[in-house]
Amino acid sequence: MTTIDINADLGESFGPWQMGSDAEMMDVITSANVACGGHAGDPSVMWQSVQMAQAKGVSIGAHPGFVDKEGFGRRRLPLTVDEVERLVAYQTGALCGVAALAGARVNYVKAHGALANWGAENADVAGAIVRATRAVLGGDAVLLTISGTQLELVARENGVKHCSEIFADRGYQPNGLLVPRGQPGAMIHDADEATVRLVEFVQTGKMPTVGGDPIALEAGSICVHGDGPTAVELAKDLRKGLEAAGVKIGAFA
Amino acid sequence: MTTIDINADLGESFGPWQMGSDAEMMDVITSANVACGGHAGDPSVMWQSVQMAQAKGVSIGAHPGFVDKEGFGRRRLPLTVDEVERLVAYQTGALCGVAALAGARVNYVKAHGALANWGAENADVAGAIVRATRAVLGGDAVLLTISGTQLELVARENGVKHCSEIFADRGYQPNGLLVPRGQPGAMIHDADEATVRLVEFVQTGKMPTVGGDPIALEAGSICVHGDGPTAVELAKDLRKGLEAAGVKIGAFA
Amino acid sequence: MTTIDINADLGESFGPWQMGSDAEMMDVITSANVACGGHAGDPSVMWQSVQMAQAKGVSIGAHPGFVDKEGFGRRRLPLTVDEVERLVAYQTGALCGVAALAGARVNYVKAHGALANWGAENADVAGAIVRATRAVLGGDAVLLTISGTQLELVARENGVKHCSEIFADRGYQPNGLLVPRGQPGAMIHDADEATVRLVEFVQTGKMPTVGGDPIALEAGSICVHGDGPTAVELAKDLRKGLEAAGVKIGAFA
Amino acid sequence: MTTIDINADLGESFGPWQMGSDAEMMDVITSANVACGGHAGDPSVMWQSVQMAQAKGVSIGAHPGFVDKEGFGRRRLPLTVDEVERLVAYQTGALCGVAALAGARVNYVKAHGALANWGAENADVAGAIVRATRAVLGGDAVLLTISGTQLELVARENGVKHCSEIFADRGYQPNGLLVPRGQPGAMIHDADEATVRLVEFVQTGKMPTVGGDPIALEAGSICVHGDGPTAVELAKDLRKGLEAAGVKIGAFA
Repeated sequence: MTTIDINADLGESFGPWQMGSDAEMMDVITSANVACGGHAGDPSVMWQSVQMAQAKGVSIGAHPGFVDKEGFGRRRLPLTVDEVERLVAYQTGALCGVAALAGARVNYVKAHGALANWGAENADVAGAIVRATRAVLGGDAVLLTISGTQLELVARENGVKHCSEIFADRGYQPNGLLVPRGQPGAMIHDADEATVRLVEFVQTGKMPTVGGDPIALEAGSICVHGDGPTAVELAKDLRKGLEAAGVKIGAFA
Repeated sequence: MTTIDINADLGESFGPWQMGSDAEMMDVITSANVACGGHAGDPSVMWQSVQMAQAKGVSIGAHPGFVDKEGFGRRRLPLTVDEVERLVAYQTGALCGVAALAGARVNYVKAHGALANWGAENADVAGAIVRATRAVLGGDAVLLTISGTQLELVARENGVKHCSEIFADRGYQPNGLLVPRGQPGAMIHDADEATVRLVEFVQTGKMPTVGGDPIALEAGSICVHGDGPTAVELAKDLRKGLEAAGVKIGAFA
Repeated sequence: MTTIDINADLGESFGPWQMGSDAEMMDVITSANVACGGHAGDPSVMWQSVQMAQAKGVSIGAHPGFVDKEGFGRRRLPLTVDEVERLVAYQTGALCGVAALAGARVNYVKAHGALANWGAENADVAGAIVRATRAVLGGDAVLLTISGTQLELVARENGVKHCSEIFADRGYQPNGLLVPRGQPGAMIHDADEATVRLVEFVQTGKMPTVGGDPIALEAGSICVHGDGPTAVELAKDLRKGLEAAGVKIGAFA
Repeated sequence: MTTIDINADLGESFGPWQMGSDAEMMDVITSANVACGGHAGDPSVMWQSVQMAQAKGVSIGAHPGFVDKEGFGRRRLPLTVDEVERLVAYQTGALCGVAALAGARVNYVKAHGALANWGAENADVAGAIVRATRAVLGGDAVLLTISGTQLELVARENGVKHCSEIFADRGYQPNGLLVPRGQPGAMIHDADEATVRLVEFVQTGKMPTVGGDPIALEAGSICVHGDGPTAVELAKDLRKGLEAAGVKIGAFA
């Protein structure tokens, strides 16, 4: 592997409220997960996001979430599986509509927050996300997932393309799961350290772990955070470091 | 002309609240204007609408409106022209997404309520609706309009297909405009009378007027109301009467 | 006991969507549980409800629920206990505000749907409802509860007045709980039968049960349903029957 | 006059989105106009605002606005006068409810954004705001207004107390109106200059104007902005300057 994607959640402003530094992040990432008006975003914010992505050659993905701005899509709402399927189809379709105004298209889906966590654990919810993605985006549909989740398994079973992501700023356990927040090694705050780890991963396919040997992980994209005071700097440094090590950065979809 | 379309607004329930008799209307109409979650509807209501339409061979149109359920999209909200364009693209795209779950596609756009009235009067707003419709639905996009409105003019100027509608239950003035509600002849309450008028129109291209000679009108669709205690009966009787007079009923798009 | 209250949920219309027959129910009940804009209602619907209640001498209660119109407050949203407390305070205060326009006051609180069920089971949630009720309505605050629930226990422990309700159209088990829907005896569809049962209860303090002896229940109010095609008739017949048996109908708060 | 109030709009965060530096502003102001969940705010944000105000002895006012978070209450929505009255009552009552949880009370009402502008121009809208304020807050109700507006006139005619505000950072015309934004002298960016002007005003009752003599203005409160990178510094400097000049800062209500 000599090419990897960098993705971030963008378009999470709403009306008068700003979140993140979307314009700057667009210079660093190759895939933008754009909120669809459920947990964040509105048609104007969505339009700005897709227009910027289109202008900078960044691949656009839908980032659907529970319709819960107050909770930012981080609360698991007790929808039925059918309701999840319709929610993902509605929001993904809505982003396709707004993207069309900018002459852009939506290439993939990455579920947000509590919806993503639910789909990672529950095969029925994963099935709803997979079906909605394929129905709306068609045969080229790609899901951006996490390796080993139900969502990835169900996508594979149903012949829907998927790309796994790893996290630039999180530590891994020997079993492949993230070190839970609050435990030693959970967070990687230093851009140099993150870069060294990711270069090693891209070159060897193995990720260092806390308390164990490096493990083989499958991943085609690195997730960076678009929010927080140092997010842009970390992402820029990471990209520079990867490129300096000969890694090519390119969209997965 | 021996063929005409019959359209109605459907999918205007919301959560626990029912509106209209959608299942019965689907047996009468050939085009369903489906609410998109702005003035009415939610992803589950939308899904039911497109699934029924698909099952009964009814053509599906997006019926976008202001995001104002409390006012049912009947209040003109002071959006910018750009915001109107993004709103129509968002809602139309969202319906395309939900329709894809049912294996259906969206064939046309008919603006709702205060948004439709604004687009009928104002060329800039009309332009926003036309651009969004073409961007989202592509080269086959059709707008369902009213003859002589700005929306129709702008669609024609921009090479976007359009179909004009006439109203089954409204009287016309010699200048082609509707008789304002509250004035004599404004409403046609009797199905037989409405049928006679419409058969004449389909056969001659001329519509009777209040206080003048019949006038030439261009129309490819008859709008019937889906709500109210007698709506379904009126629509059924009208369709029967048209068919008995040899008029063929078929979708315009 | 020779006096009992009759309560019903009202004000559950929203914007263009009607629910229930509020005007007719106001002639039958003595306490109206008015939706507060969370699961149903809007400021105009609320105003109509309090204005009618005031005109007919019906006691007004706040009927707060999750902010989830699409799910009609029937889905348990994962709020924190603090968020529940603020939600109940917000909605109850809002109804007090609208009631003030009609020269009316809010006398009690009855939680709605999934919020009520949660407060019935969980002492922390019950505590939030109790604290919000007392804070907003002051020393005269009354909670309309179900006997034996956590909400009733917590209200008692905290010295907040409460009134228990029984259901006109539901059967009881020997342990005092309702017969679950779908089991034999769960629903009482006949107004005469319901009346006989309730007259017996008012006169003896004992309620018939399915598969056991009548049991002692404490209740100061009878809950009737405001929605459904026969709701008004059932409620009228029940009230007539109770009055014919010498039971006086009067508000508990 | 030796005492004047300083007010600011606070509590304008929403869910995950922050706006303003409320905690710091609470140390500077004497009256907090708290958003009520319409144009901004939610029950938790409202609770934090009233709790901080209560802890710091800051007087609490309701700051109702159109239910339009996407437009931040800055778009004039075409409500009826009755709907405006119910909206103000609903939101003011809701804040009273949340304030009660913190043992605090709401002392006044200041309309927000497009609602305030409408009430300043239109006597019917002003009447709705006045009636709702008096109904919900009772005989001690105070309206925070701008001198010479319809809202002030209608409050006076109806015997509702009012307090006029002046703007720390805006220039005035000889006719008493603000210099329109974009014209020379519209904005006062320098804290020292603002302080000198306001000290003069407090001591003489006259405000400097652009292109004319100082004019007599009636005002009991100075409005400062809570948002923007320099808002807190400007407000702190202004308060220090006023106190250094012997002006006492105290709540009007």
